[in-house]
Amino acid sequence: MSRTMVASRRRLSGRPLTADHFTVAFRLHPGGVALVTADAADGPVALTASSLASVSASPPIFMFSVSSQSSSTATLRSSTTVVVHLLDAAAQDLAELGATSDIDRFGDESSWARLDTGEPVFPAARAWIRGRVLHRLDAGGSTVIVAEGVESSIGDDHVEQYGERDGLVYFNRSWHTVGSHTRLPGH
Amino acid sequence: MSRTMVASRRRLSGRPLTADHFTVAFRLHPGGVALVTADAADGPVALTASSLASVSASPPIFMFSVSSQSSSTATLRSSTTVVVHLLDAAAQDLAELGATSDIDRFGDESSWARLDTGEPVFPAARAWIRGRVLHRLDAGGSTVIVAEGVESSIGDDHVEQYGERDGLVYFNRSWHTVGSHTRLPGH
Repeated sequence: MSRTMVASRRRLSGRPLTADHFTVAFRLHPGGVALVTADAADGPVALTASSLASVSASPPIFMFSVSSQSSSTATLRSSTTVVVHLLDAAAQDLAELGATSDIDRFGDESSWARLDTGEPVFPAARAWIRGRVLHRLDAGGSTVIVAEGVESSIGDDHVEQYGERDGLVYFNRSWHTVGSHTRLPGH
Repeated sequence: MSRTMVASRRRLSGRPLTADHFTVAFRLHPGGVALVTADAADGPVALTASSLASVSASPPIFMFSVSSQSSSTATLRSSTTVVVHLLDAAAQDLAELGATSDIDRFGDESSWARLDTGEPVFPAARAWIRGRVLHRLDAGGSTVIVAEGVESSIGDDHVEQYGERDGLVYFNRSWHTVGSHTRLPGH
């Protein structure tokens, strides 16, 4: 992009930001949905996160954040590896599994397996990536985790087929779907 | 959640993760859309990011990542403050503005203003938040920025009205919209 050195004449100011304002603002900021799992040798944990994002493709690096209020966070804070499951609309049940309190998220033994390296994995997810934690950052009672992907299962790798799958979105405190029916005109 | 100590009998393994696999996997991971702006005293910059996420509400902390390949990244890496604009479907033009190369993103002076603190702001966005950078983390040629929100403009604060606005999503290399028409049954 080119830079503009001409100063805009208009001046604006906002208002001090409260936690309520912040929550309202982000409630309508859509997020993709991931199920994050780990096991730091004290039992498997799983939680649903809408903060997962790609940071870099080469090397493959991703990030997400977890609230300290989640019962899974202690394990995620001490684990050196994590698995992120990228969920599409067909995996809404996994999204709900990791978002529901006071249930045994591993109670259905047919739904999950162990990787050779020990982490729990839910094969029904469209894709999962096992990552090695690079950075762990405490911020405001939450923890930001940055990890490098080392191993994955990404369906059968037919990219064209993926294009027909509908995405899963968390928006306004509900699950939503995106696909060919929601595409906007434009770039 | 409760923890399961019974080991699952199933074992799985994945495949070594390549950059191509990673890109394919995340192409179908939906992301909300934000326009990030800053000015580190060398001219205003703006770029579109699909990695913005809330980290913590109290204190209000958010994060996003920027690729070092963006011309705006040098400024974002040296700026002590940033502004994130949370874009809805009505702000698709702002999303495209920050995603298009080789244009003057500040050429239309009627579209933006300056905050009293100097940062450029695009008032057409549903909401913007000015943040003070807390952490900057280099990861694989990209930079993760974690910031604490200090000032905002969030429409007219009628939460009910926000509920009627359609969200903007980046998915499968296209813009999509979510709203009451895309809501899935369930929690």
